Amino acid sequence: MKVGMDGLGESAVEKAVTPQDKLSAHLSDDMAAVNRLIRARMASEHAPRIPEVTAHLVEAGGKRLRPLLTLASARMLGYTGVDHVKLAATVEFIHTATLLHDDVVDESERRRGRPTANLLWDNKSSVLVGDYLFSRSFQLMVETGSLRVLDILANASATIAEGEVLQLTAAQDLRTDEKIYLQVIRGKTAALFAAATEVGGVIAGASEPVVAALRDYGDALGIAFQIADDILDYGGSDAAIGKNTGDDFRERKLTLPLIKAVAKASPEEHAFWVRVIEKGDQRDGDLAQAMVILQRHDAISACRAEALAWASRAKDALYNLPVHPLRQILSELADFVVSRIS
Amino acid sequence: MKVGMDGLGESAVEKAVTPQDKLSAHLSDDMAAVNRLIRARMASEHAPRIPEVTAHLVEAGGKRLRPLLTLASARMLGYTGVDHVKLAATVEFIHTATLLHDDVVDESERRRGRPTANLLWDNKSSVLVGDYLFSRSFQLMVETGSLRVLDILANASATIAEGEVLQLTAAQDLRTDEKIYLQVIRGKTAALFAAATEVGGVIAGASEPVVAALRDYGDALGIAFQIADDILDYGGSDAAIGKNTGDDFRERKLTLPLIKAVAKASPEEHAFWVRVIEKGDQRDGDLAQAMVILQRHDAISACRAEALAWASRAKDALYNLPVHPLRQILSELADFVVSRIS
Repeated sequence: MKVGMDGLGESAVEKAVTPQDKLSAHLSDDMAAVNRLIRARMASEHAPRIPEVTAHLVEAGGKRLRPLLTLASARMLGYTGVDHVKLAATVEFIHTATLLHDDVVDESERRRGRPTANLLWDNKSSVLVGDYLFSRSFQLMVETGSLRVLDILANASATIAEGEVLQLTAAQDLRTDEKIYLQVIRGKTAALFAAATEVGGVIAGASEPVVAALRDYGDALGIAFQIADDILDYGGSDAAIGKNTGDDFRERKLTLPLIKAVAKASPEEHAFWVRVIEKGDQRDGDLAQAMVILQRHDAISACRAEALAWASRAKDALYNLPVHPLRQILSELADFVVSRIS
Repeated sequence: MKVGMDGLGESAVEKAVTPQDKLSAHLSDDMAAVNRLIRARMASEHAPRIPEVTAHLVEAGGKRLRPLLTLASARMLGYTGVDHVKLAATVEFIHTATLLHDDVVDESERRRGRPTANLLWDNKSSVLVGDYLFSRSFQLMVETGSLRVLDILANASATIAEGEVLQLTAAQDLRTDEKIYLQVIRGKTAALFAAATEVGGVIAGASEPVVAALRDYGDALGIAFQIADDILDYGGSDAAIGKNTGDDFRERKLTLPLIKAVAKASPEEHAFWVRVIEKGDQRDGDLAQAMVILQRHDAISACRAEALAWASRAKDALYNLPVHPLRQILSELADFVVSRIS
């Protein structure tokens, strides 16, 4: 398949507005193959609950960003085999499995504007179907026969799981610092982004510097993306993103804006953070008060600067890759994930 | 290490009473290495909750049967490397992870006579630490560098997860037949037993017939073990096993004794099963009534015969393996798992 010459024709590529739309348009044949594989592998002859729960999530119009990263990385390096499709499906299965488990952990009721699986079925189904998807992803990656790929994805899985536990214990703890925060968001977002791009390079047989550049791009993109997300939870510059402002505050999560404000807190402010975050004694007006304090210490501006710096790092990493239309889109994607906050 | 010439000396082997004790005594140096590896790998520098939760389970005096099966399989075939220790730890991590998730799914409060992790910490910790152990097991098996081993364990993981979901949906459903039951218990028990023995053979470089024999042994042993367990839940011949008689009945699980009784039910009996299992309307005396019905149809005897037949199959599979003291103990182990019901 020639990149861009897909079923939708060049016009779909031209009409695409966001970088993500452009990736989808460029890689539409590959993505169609990924979607077929996902549907085939989430089937279970004997346990119909599995495709029910999974379809709810997989068909819910998720952005499929991670599999697109894998496909783009491999294609950009001239890969002509079929294993990139398996790896893209692997990455999406891992992502979906973590969403299922996250919703149990967060006791979420909505995801992507729809009721969560744990609400529609039960926590049991979310836990077990998540495990099933993990094991399916494991089978898919073994099929590629690449120990290097298995090593990367095993390490990413461990980072994800460790980050999740760390987030659980770091929440509500005002001692959480920026170093811990970085680990949490690497686990939550960047580890899978980095693995998604890195395995695309590995399967394409890229040289070590190219593989490292892809990993660095994914890592920095993921961190920029997550910091931006955490800023938007305090309003950002655009409230129309579908996420409820203040969710992290109400769940007493120590994200970067709070961490920066806590580090500069006056005694009165510190007492406020102890009450609302550590003790969880939140009253009307506390969120507004929190935002006044963030403003006072320029916490959001400082976070924004960090997100932009990570987006720059992502783009810098791309210079080590060959010139390619997909490379250009990945560069635009790095700008795009922080455009929501600038 | 010469088998049997371990730190405890020959006397420990002689004093061992059960086949499992004998395996532990024969393989005590290897098991010490497995335990060291488990402790090292369950550590997490950043998330102390992980070793807390894991230690609670791993140190709880579990029988370590699965890692012993891996060690015994490899040693019996003359393996002198170190990867069998990694695989034994892998198998124990997978087992521990499934226990953590099972306790969330079953809403259990006690395991091995102690409060469960979900009760001591919370469901969140059990879900996430289970995920962490899965990812750790995955890293360990990748370290062996054997794609064959990875393939076996990936397939076992999928069978386990599918069996768990199947059990969830088959529970309370009187249409559950013996074929579905077999799948459920393969997922619940036999798949990991079979993988534990099979990977021991693979890592030892055994021939295909020997590898197949080890897999068949583990599969049949696991099935015999689980049928015996399900019989004991209805009292068996010995109530002193620490398991509460009637748990499966109260949880409305369709295990083999019930499936056999339901298949032969009179219209009145069928109505009884619909009420207590499908509708979950259980009253005082219902368990006793259920046991009378089981007795009437010789359901327990029929289950016992099946468990004994699977134990025989396990022993038969061993004939394809070379003569070895460990082979003799594995044969005794097959008799032992059904001795509880005969």
